[in-house]
Amino acid sequence: MYRHNHYSLMRSLLIGRFQPFHKGHLKLIHYFLKKDYEIIIGIGSAQKSYTYTNPFTGGERYLMISQSLEEKHCHIIPIPDINRYGIWVSHVTDLVPPFEMVLTNNSLLKELFTREGYTIQETPLFKRKEYSGTEIRKRMIKNQDWQSLVPPPVVKIIDTINGIQRTKHLSSNDK
Amino acid sequence: MYRHNHYSLMRSLLIGRFQPFHKGHLKLIHYFLKKDYEIIIGIGSAQKSYTYTNPFTGGERYLMISQSLEEKHCHIIPIPDINRYGIWVSHVTDLVPPFEMVLTNNSLLKELFTREGYTIQETPLFKRKEYSGTEIRKRMIKNQDWQSLVPPPVVKIIDTINGIQRTKHLSSNDK
Amino acid sequence: MYRHNHYSLMRSLLIGRFQPFHKGHLKLIHYFLKKDYEIIIGIGSAQKSYTYTNPFTGGERYLMISQSLEEKHCHIIPIPDINRYGIWVSHVTDLVPPFEMVLTNNSLLKELFTREGYTIQETPLFKRKEYSGTEIRKRMIKNQDWQSLVPPPVVKIIDTINGIQRTKHLSSNDK
Amino acid sequence: MYRHNHYSLMRSLLIGRFQPFHKGHLKLIHYFLKKDYEIIIGIGSAQKSYTYTNPFTGGERYLMISQSLEEKHCHIIPIPDINRYGIWVSHVTDLVPPFEMVLTNNSLLKELFTREGYTIQETPLFKRKEYSGTEIRKRMIKNQDWQSLVPPPVVKIIDTINGIQRTKHLSSNDK
Amino acid sequence: MYRHNHYSLMRSLLIGRFQPFHKGHLKLIHYFLKKDYEIIIGIGSAQKSYTYTNPFTGGERYLMISQSLEEKHCHIIPIPDINRYGIWVSHVTDLVPPFEMVLTNNSLLKELFTREGYTIQETPLFKRKEYSGTEIRKRMIKNQDWQSLVPPPVVKIIDTINGIQRTKHLSSNDK
Amino acid sequence: MYRHNHYSLMRSLLIGRFQPFHKGHLKLIHYFLKKDYEIIIGIGSAQKSYTYTNPFTGGERYLMISQSLEEKHCHIIPIPDINRYGIWVSHVTDLVPPFEMVLTNNSLLKELFTREGYTIQETPLFKRKEYSGTEIRKRMIKNQDWQSLVPPPVVKIIDTINGIQRTKHLSSNDK
Repeated sequence: MYRHNHYSLMRSLLIGRFQPFHKGHLKLIHYFLKKDYEIIIGIGSAQKSYTYTNPFTGGERYLMISQSLEEKHCHIIPIPDINRYGIWVSHVTDLVPPFEMVLTNNSLLKELFTREGYTIQETPLFKRKEYSGTEIRKRMIKNQDWQSLVPPPVVKIIDTINGIQRTKHLSSNDK
Repeated sequence: MYRHNHYSLMRSLLIGRFQPFHKGHLKLIHYFLKKDYEIIIGIGSAQKSYTYTNPFTGGERYLMISQSLEEKHCHIIPIPDINRYGIWVSHVTDLVPPFEMVLTNNSLLKELFTREGYTIQETPLFKRKEYSGTEIRKRMIKNQDWQSLVPPPVVKIIDTINGIQRTKHLSSNDK
Repeated sequence: MYRHNHYSLMRSLLIGRFQPFHKGHLKLIHYFLKKDYEIIIGIGSAQKSYTYTNPFTGGERYLMISQSLEEKHCHIIPIPDINRYGIWVSHVTDLVPPFEMVLTNNSLLKELFTREGYTIQETPLFKRKEYSGTEIRKRMIKNQDWQSLVPPPVVKIIDTINGIQRTKHLSSNDK
Repeated sequence: MYRHNHYSLMRSLLIGRFQPFHKGHLKLIHYFLKKDYEIIIGIGSAQKSYTYTNPFTGGERYLMISQSLEEKHCHIIPIPDINRYGIWVSHVTDLVPPFEMVLTNNSLLKELFTREGYTIQETPLFKRKEYSGTEIRKRMIKNQDWQSLVPPPVVKIIDTINGIQRTKHLSSNDK
Repeated sequence: MYRHNHYSLMRSLLIGRFQPFHKGHLKLIHYFLKKDYEIIIGIGSAQKSYTYTNPFTGGERYLMISQSLEEKHCHIIPIPDINRYGIWVSHVTDLVPPFEMVLTNNSLLKELFTREGYTIQETPLFKRKEYSGTEIRKRMIKNQDWQSLVPPPVVKIIDTINGIQRTKHLSSNDK
Repeated sequence: MYRHNHYSLMRSLLIGRFQPFHKGHLKLIHYFLKKDYEIIIGIGSAQKSYTYTNPFTGGERYLMISQSLEEKHCHIIPIPDINRYGIWVSHVTDLVPPFEMVLTNNSLLKELFTREGYTIQETPLFKRKEYSGTEIRKRMIKNQDWQSLVPPPVVKIIDTINGIQRTKHLSSNDK
């Protein structure tokens, strides 16, 4: 079957929005890299940005991930939304290299990929309450420590693009 | 200004359709890597596949490039078409990390990126008549040597996905 | 005028999402078939699926309706959303055979179709609290009797596609 | 596997543009109905109309088919284009009931559906030079006999919608 | 730079949804016209209509504005949504004549246009609680005085299109 | 009926691509203004630009028209393509103020608007071989006199945006 790829037994897909990329994501990736998985990191909702829940652009998130992973071999691929779950798996497999396994705890993703014959692997959780995009964005607008929750390159990138001010503006705009 | 990125003086963008990725592309990338450029390789028309001029999916082309470049550091990012040139540069810059320079000889790309303040750098040509997607696809359907025109991993990938048969079918369909 | 069709005095349009198709829908269709109406059943939001409010695909809903109506003559036509009410009527009339009457109690549909010169006919209600997609989906996730609210072929289809498990997963995902 | 449907061993898909529906199409459908196939007739490019190669709307083509097949049991389902072959099969299977077999001689369709695990069945040809949309449209604009090439209800529908005049106008517009 | 237009030092952009166009909008425009600004009025969400928060079509809103401004020179340009903030500014600048300044108090618009090098000018507020689309729509469905809050031509247009009844219907539909 | 507007007996629609706006267009508008028509000028394919047949953006064409008509009262409204003729008229009427008459010689436009109940008025031709976008673009790339074929403000705008160079680049790109 087409989707059973012929290149690598262990190529697997990990999809997230990464708003922003944080240490929970990084630990998860390291956890699977240690098991010799080849990982495709799909940047979900790649076309979204400049809203409070999705403040950073696809390109900015790509940079956060690639600079945090420097030296480790991962594929980082933006996945724009297609807003139609019935064909979403096909949309993803069209844009990324063939893979066999999906790393996720999300029940919708499990449902969708299982239907198409993919193997699902549950992921371990790392301090989920702290290592969370929602928590990090909240701390940003409250001037609390968020820097310790993300890899150092992400701090630098968010600083360079005035990300805190941007997130605060977007937060006030949503009210 | 936003687009003058603050991370790297030499991050530059190279866009192609890579149908398929060939030695001309590879030599070009090596040429700029030797100059210490950090290269973003944009896979143009990423959503297109299964036509004679665009036989391979975005994911397959990603794999061709990443396996041909193994060890060299490049960013490979699919760029779906937006079919509206007036906002296309903005579409690209939204999806990829900030860059300063565009590597191209194409007059439309020059026009579009120059208008937005980017620097253009012309690219050297390597055996343009042979190292050409059009030429390679022609040879595929005529059972002529195309293998010598692409990097070895591309031969292997095209073999695995039955790419020659696919290209032949698509060619006959277009007539 | 174009839209005053010349084929049948009584061809009429009935639009619903049918998530799932239930006995209230079926009674309504029988009610109008007895009056010798020729009915076009438009499956609204045909492109939606795998969300808690829209768990079933357009194709699955088509099957539910066609198997429940076996022998009766109806046109069943999927209508994808166009997300722009100002042109939605035109979108519908472009996809379905010419019709004269719209069967609906919905105030927006009345407004939109009246503006374009169509006749509206109100529809009778059959046990609206029970014969309701919302109610049926609620019962599914609570393991309560939902089977008595839908035609037997719908029970069988939902069973075959593991629809209860799917709906439960989607429900938990939405929280 | 999901797509191996559990309802009918012989449900099969036949896709065409039907511009207009002609006797070649009808004979083909009768040929497979006699073999006890359950047929899904997909109206391709359903959103297209008012061009010389696609003069009739999706709704008009639906009517041509349903009135020509009166009494025979077929599913007629409009399939709008998605303009991306890599996900097109998924788009189709999302909109129509589950099926197992695809009836086609088209090399692209064979390629796309085979890749997803479907069985292909070649179709017999009936007077292909005459029973052809292109031929029929040509005859329409030259005032030659086209009526004998389509089922009688199609003649009536084209007459009602002033289809000959429309096709002539569109032909002159394309020049 | 491209966007620094060469025609007028003071061409500026004012974007709103104008559901409906009211006296607060009118006073704002007069305020800037007196300063000799050349104003481009962008009708935001131009494709939206027939929802309670966006009851009027782009064309109806165009008419409200043009008839209220009769004699004064403004450019009125519909701007359909693009649903992607990262390229929205580029979308706007593609559709309207070159401008230099953006008249807005909205934090998202400030963020987006500042990033692209535009000057922002804050706008004065005129009885913001009364001169508000939300307030006017509320009064419409409660049969309270809304007429005094909009320019006379808007009263007449809303009357002609049965706008009050429409808004009431849409309001009831949303519940 | 909705589309028979209630405001003006003589509001009429004139659609063109205006690549660029030329004296033929201007004479046509003057011709109808003298008859006391209120004219809506629809800028067709508003989203297109930077191709040889559509070199200028919607915003640039808006400016060409508005500066050439200074003082005369017309509505100038960009109409992005919707790529589906069956709903195109509805798309147009949604974006522009109500109108009764369409000024056109195009057979497709006649067909589409007549079907929806609009009156068509043929337009006089003014030196059609010279006053033609195609002719003007040809002269631009051949360094021949094109300036005499367009109103003076258009010469100035094309000069300011380096339009000749742009058109030449696009022309070479198309080959």
